[in-house]
Amino acid sequence: MNTHDTTIRVRYEDADPMGFLHHSKYLSYFEIGRTEMYRAAGGDYRQMEELGWFVVVVRADIRYRKPARYDDELVIRTRLQKVTQAKIIHEYQVLLKGESLATATVTLALIDRKGQAQRIPDWMRELV
Amino acid sequence: MNTHDTTIRVRYEDADPMGFLHHSKYLSYFEIGRTEMYRAAGGDYRQMEELGWFVVVVRADIRYRKPARYDDELVIRTRLQKVTQAKIIHEYQVLLKGESLATATVTLALIDRKGQAQRIPDWMRELV
Amino acid sequence: MNTHDTTIRVRYEDADPMGFLHHSKYLSYFEIGRTEMYRAAGGDYRQMEELGWFVVVVRADIRYRKPARYDDELVIRTRLQKVTQAKIIHEYQVLLKGESLATATVTLALIDRKGQAQRIPDWMRELV
Amino acid sequence: MNTHDTTIRVRYEDADPMGFLHHSKYLSYFEIGRTEMYRAAGGDYRQMEELGWFVVVVRADIRYRKPARYDDELVIRTRLQKVTQAKIIHEYQVLLKGESLATATVTLALIDRKGQAQRIPDWMRELV
Repeated sequence: MNTHDTTIRVRYEDADPMGFLHHSKYLSYFEIGRTEMYRAAGGDYRQMEELGWFVVVVRADIRYRKPARYDDELVIRTRLQKVTQAKIIHEYQVLLKGESLATATVTLALIDRKGQAQRIPDWMRELV
Repeated sequence: MNTHDTTIRVRYEDADPMGFLHHSKYLSYFEIGRTEMYRAAGGDYRQMEELGWFVVVVRADIRYRKPARYDDELVIRTRLQKVTQAKIIHEYQVLLKGESLATATVTLALIDRKGQAQRIPDWMRELV
Repeated sequence: MNTHDTTIRVRYEDADPMGFLHHSKYLSYFEIGRTEMYRAAGGDYRQMEELGWFVVVVRADIRYRKPARYDDELVIRTRLQKVTQAKIIHEYQVLLKGESLATATVTLALIDRKGQAQRIPDWMRELV
Repeated sequence: MNTHDTTIRVRYEDADPMGFLHHSKYLSYFEIGRTEMYRAAGGDYRQMEELGWFVVVVRADIRYRKPARYDDELVIRTRLQKVTQAKIIHEYQVLLKGESLATATVTLALIDRKGQAQRIPDWMRELV
């Protein structure tokens, strides 16, 4: 229910001179994971932005256990851990052929066009 | 007068599994080159966007002769080639210790918030 | 036969402050296009690199006609235009719902681990 | 002594559709921070890699407080927190005109070409 898998193939551009997926890119892969989870639930993040709601990351804690490599087909497993009035917390797992390469917890908040923190509305809480 | 040099050190993240600066990144380096040239002339690209003017690339033609590597300190040499009522054309050279690694021609146009093409205003023609 | 379509959804990270796919990213999308075309023909670019063959871009000429936006589902249409003893030339089209947003020609060469230009071997010419 | 400041101007490409520095890019900016700190101490990370030593990130914990924007001139303040036999821990602060926008702790480990964890050698401990 509150878990969603998205498959991402590591782009050449995303790999570094070690041949590994650069450690910064995991955050972008997580962003794709939660966007696709939201889409699968009927949400549309682009539309949300057009309406003036913006999601920002307030904390990210990532543990890298084994490297991913160029061309690896990764599964990004996104799990909704918690929604409060002010925050949405997701947990992530990066899997290669069933093996866990990395895990993370990312905390989101909602802001308006002026950058003011917003209470997470009920319809969004239901969707996520 | 119409030439400007900017120094950029190749980031680890910008290098690919060959250890080379990824070929897509040259376009970002050229963008930094023309922004710094514009700044040196007294312009402020961020302010321009806040006023509702946006610069878009309409054509880019790049020739890669020798690779740049992670940590190389590159000189991006930007030269204004031509300004018409509708277009700004720059030429670029990527230099490593005086040796030319790549050359390019990039053509820009001006649009407004709605994406409509704009005539390049006189004050901008004078600045660039 | 010598045309291949790959679908790529524009990542949030790949979009710039205008909300457009950054112009440098098209080169990465083309790289994905030709890699997937090569994979569809039975090739494996990662394995090629492990064997000591590297493909480098020697020229790229891109024309941007209309912007792509965050979350757009783009089709990257890759067409093999020509293979000579020294070069592989592909043409690209970026399509959004059938409309062409950009076109490009990208020329590749083959090098070995030492960076020496290599003749394109017959097996590769047959594959591409 | 064990603190180093590096200035980075936010690239257009690094900013997202909100106009903010994309949250994944902070990790690349931290990487530049520690590389420059290492260089200032007489180290050369590229040379280290050529000798077969590779630094990998094993954990990153980032708190984002206020957004950085395109063209902001940021100070990345890198502080060495701890070096053990197996790990190097740095703390980071992202500053804009003296105001702290984000803080982070990033833990590094050392591996060889085969990916095996290595004891951090004395000369490196002295340098960092």
